[in-house]
Amino acid sequence: MNEFELIDVIVAGLGDSATGRWLDVGPGDDASVSTLPPGTQLVSSIDTLVAGRHFPGDANPADIGFRAMMVSLSDLAAMGAEPHIVLVALTLETADPAWAAALAGGMSEAASQTGAIIAGGNLSRGRLSLSMSVHGVVPTGAAVLRSGARPGDLVYVTGPLGGAAAALANGFADEELNTCFFRPAARVDLAADLRAVASAAIDVSDGFLQDAGHLAAASGVCLDIEVARVPVRSGAQLQYALQGGDDYELCFTAAAPPPFPAVCVGRVVDGSGVLLDGEPVTTAGYQHFA
Amino acid sequence: MNEFELIDVIVAGLGDSATGRWLDVGPGDDASVSTLPPGTQLVSSIDTLVAGRHFPGDANPADIGFRAMMVSLSDLAAMGAEPHIVLVALTLETADPAWAAALAGGMSEAASQTGAIIAGGNLSRGRLSLSMSVHGVVPTGAAVLRSGARPGDLVYVTGPLGGAAAALANGFADEELNTCFFRPAARVDLAADLRAVASAAIDVSDGFLQDAGHLAAASGVCLDIEVARVPVRSGAQLQYALQGGDDYELCFTAAAPPPFPAVCVGRVVDGSGVLLDGEPVTTAGYQHFA
Repeated sequence: MNEFELIDVIVAGLGDSATGRWLDVGPGDDASVSTLPPGTQLVSSIDTLVAGRHFPGDANPADIGFRAMMVSLSDLAAMGAEPHIVLVALTLETADPAWAAALAGGMSEAASQTGAIIAGGNLSRGRLSLSMSVHGVVPTGAAVLRSGARPGDLVYVTGPLGGAAAALANGFADEELNTCFFRPAARVDLAADLRAVASAAIDVSDGFLQDAGHLAAASGVCLDIEVARVPVRSGAQLQYALQGGDDYELCFTAAAPPPFPAVCVGRVVDGSGVLLDGEPVTTAGYQHFA
Repeated sequence: MNEFELIDVIVAGLGDSATGRWLDVGPGDDASVSTLPPGTQLVSSIDTLVAGRHFPGDANPADIGFRAMMVSLSDLAAMGAEPHIVLVALTLETADPAWAAALAGGMSEAASQTGAIIAGGNLSRGRLSLSMSVHGVVPTGAAVLRSGARPGDLVYVTGPLGGAAAALANGFADEELNTCFFRPAARVDLAADLRAVASAAIDVSDGFLQDAGHLAAASGVCLDIEVARVPVRSGAQLQYALQGGDDYELCFTAAAPPPFPAVCVGRVVDGSGVLLDGEPVTTAGYQHFA
């Protein structure tokens, strides 16, 4: 099977998620062509997931595809953006059509759940990795940045943390925790409400304390977190909720209670960094070159 | 040097190419925010370049960065699009700040030459590769597709071919040919004129005959090429001009002569595939899984 035949297999596996609505030219030309809704801005991010580093290379290909898509879309969720298009750059070791079709099926499932359209991609040969370039839209001026938190705001997270890190620590022996790792939900479902209420937001990808530190630094404030309030995924330990990454819930700040379920974990105060029960923390999360 | 410090080095190396004009939020948040000109569509493509496959891993990092950016922007040129933003996903083996800064400098140089703005990126650890997600704009409905060639059109290429393949075949021993490989120019300079004149276009990345075959197939026509007309880069052999990839000139069809220098290499006729001096060719170019 040559490169172009394999691309056909992948595009077939994407099904309806590679066509429709705002996508005027989809996979097959030099580039895609899409139309943004009037009065919107383009919100863009890219993520790379490398086998053996970000996911086990022998995992179910549908899970690999689903997770890669959701992990990447999570950055749009953190901006309060609604998904527009995704470009997928696949680097594969072999031309296994069944494996590639399953991978495409997982990506398609995640795209369908979030309203994203897969507009194009690239196929290379090499060590297994996926780069997902994700693009969303927000009404002009409405993007939620990391930098808007102000003293007096409260700090929220959108769901329980630590499940993905616990799954990894357990060697993927616990089916329920595995779902946290392989089937995360990018919280793009909250986009409109987040834009309405949040002063700042970030997705919890590198670990809650580290990501809270990024938000604090960007806003020039201190996040004062009460450890007992941090929601811990059933079956996970507190340590994973605080320092483990890969949960893809959102951490955000707001001056008013949000109109969706979220857990208040602390407040924004003058200063810098993150306090955990009043003690400064040197945030530790996942760093690729540490 | 940790991941975040290395990102700072890279962003510093990008300089002015990571700020300005239509980029409202640049590198540093969960995603970038940019504004498209009114009345335009978004044109999007992604390419991955893997060390040892698409470029020598021990090449000058500025050349690697420059070439990766131009190779990727070339897909926008083939659509008649003007560059808007680029996202860069880097997978690096080590955290060498001098190497990373030089890579960023090469990307920045290519971005500046083409008017692209580097809006964000991602840094992972693994085997050296670069995924470049490129985004341009065209006036609504004006994108040049592969599928518009009609019998009676003439076939053009925008410049000499074969130099990059010859450089590779020579083991990069010839400085002048090396420039063809490492310093290609994405022909985004032609965007507006191409939109005005071209019925179809593709960039010459996999080899002229193969790419001409893609254009012919997408348009449902035959491209009748006269081999003596094909412009061969000085120092390269005809074989490289016909079958070598990586030149990143454009092949396009038009019913009227273009208002920019281009070489007429044949004509569009009824039928399918590519004829070379009247003989059907089984197109052969670069295929990753062949």
